[in-house]
Amino acid sequence: MNLFTRRIRVHWGDCDPARIAFHPNFIRWMDEGFTEMALARGIDFAALQREDALFRGAPLVDVRCGFRAPARYGQVLGQEVAPPVFSGRSFRIVHRFVLPDGRLAAEGEQVRIWGREVDGVLRAVPMPDTVCAAFAG
Amino acid sequence: MNLFTRRIRVHWGDCDPARIAFHPNFIRWMDEGFTEMALARGIDFAALQREDALFRGAPLVDVRCGFRAPARYGQVLGQEVAPPVFSGRSFRIVHRFVLPDGRLAAEGEQVRIWGREVDGVLRAVPMPDTVCAAFAG
Amino acid sequence: MNLFTRRIRVHWGDCDPARIAFHPNFIRWMDEGFTEMALARGIDFAALQREDALFRGAPLVDVRCGFRAPARYGQVLGQEVAPPVFSGRSFRIVHRFVLPDGRLAAEGEQVRIWGREVDGVLRAVPMPDTVCAAFAG
Amino acid sequence: MNLFTRRIRVHWGDCDPARIAFHPNFIRWMDEGFTEMALARGIDFAALQREDALFRGAPLVDVRCGFRAPARYGQVLGQEVAPPVFSGRSFRIVHRFVLPDGRLAAEGEQVRIWGREVDGVLRAVPMPDTVCAAFAG
Repeated sequence: MNLFTRRIRVHWGDCDPARIAFHPNFIRWMDEGFTEMALARGIDFAALQREDALFRGAPLVDVRCGFRAPARYGQVLGQEVAPPVFSGRSFRIVHRFVLPDGRLAAEGEQVRIWGREVDGVLRAVPMPDTVCAAFAG
Repeated sequence: MNLFTRRIRVHWGDCDPARIAFHPNFIRWMDEGFTEMALARGIDFAALQREDALFRGAPLVDVRCGFRAPARYGQVLGQEVAPPVFSGRSFRIVHRFVLPDGRLAAEGEQVRIWGREVDGVLRAVPMPDTVCAAFAG
Repeated sequence: MNLFTRRIRVHWGDCDPARIAFHPNFIRWMDEGFTEMALARGIDFAALQREDALFRGAPLVDVRCGFRAPARYGQVLGQEVAPPVFSGRSFRIVHRFVLPDGRLAAEGEQVRIWGREVDGVLRAVPMPDTVCAAFAG
Repeated sequence: MNLFTRRIRVHWGDCDPARIAFHPNFIRWMDEGFTEMALARGIDFAALQREDALFRGAPLVDVRCGFRAPARYGQVLGQEVAPPVFSGRSFRIVHRFVLPDGRLAAEGEQVRIWGREVDGVLRAVPMPDTVCAAFAG
């Protein structure tokens, strides 16, 4: 399966007056989870940008998230990040957020590109083979 | 068209190291924009919750956003919020974020329900006719 | 008095489970309020950075905020930003957040410098006279 | 010394265009760090609120943070949370954020009370002896 997982505590400040995680936090957690998954496979975006000033990381093109059950203040969620699925110059990453009792809190999807600045404009460029291989784990 | 519009300044703290608005902010702006649109049509969620302790607002079920052009630090975006489109007990709101030069920065969509706590559980209940009429403008 | 003022709606997502604005938002609002005050006086940090790639804005050195009364979900706050008070190479900006009934919700203070990168290191440099004069209004 | 410590990765979305952590994040990290410190000593605010509906947690009265060296994108900070120091009905918690090379990035201080709703109004009430003892570690 090659799933990356991490744990997220739902903090007081993550919650809205309904005592549940305010939804944009899931979008932020998907961004952080992608980075942590990449790091765990040896892909360090901060280091790659230091090495290549024109490398622009993996910009987000589309994001989607569905909310299935509330994630409540004080709970610890499990975030599962699936390996990227490639489609031309973009790739898709599926995320699941699981409640302590095993039910799904939310599931979402990011579409990203491998970005590089070419003539002052951000372009989707082919992902290096070594990075592809690293993502595949 | 009955579009609601507001202006958003892209602040320093909204931006990431690429000097563009960090994407979860668009999800937050969609949430705020929906509330502002409702307020402009006389629908005040804070007041409705004071009147009915079991009313839970308009919880988000699904959200999607596509990023078409970067929104840069210092720019003022136009956010356009379309009136809700109803489908059974849920409704859909389309948002567009427009750059100063008229190009599209991002477009997104929220699916929401009209929420009320019934026997301790959040349920989608029919939206009152007066609210429906107010949203229609 | 030469006070800059703006209005802030306390949105659902700004609030915590106590239904009041989560405190780091005040720190963010102080940052945004400073920028808006500067803009209103013709000082555009984004433009200044485009003109001088080594200019680093007005980095924050110290911040403090005291919370006096809760700012509740749905309320509109008045933010008052006082003109900078200079002291050597740093300056101090006082902020007040006022509730609809006139009571003080919070008051805070920022200490900032005028920052420029010198030999790869951020330094406090003298603020240009034209900027000083503009801040004084 | 009885210091509580945790690690914080400076994520892309935590950073501003200067590629350093945007300062309100430190205020949020202080809030989260206090909660994590309390949890590590067996003080679970979410559980305490479930047991006593009028308990309002440990509301923040004052916060202060000084920024000494930039915390850069990709770095892992050490956050050190000192045990509370009591003074009448309020208590003070000192936080330090340490860079990978051991230098101080930021140091701050929170003043909190032990809050309970009395006749519809939030009051500072004496902290229970068991909680005091737990904080002392």
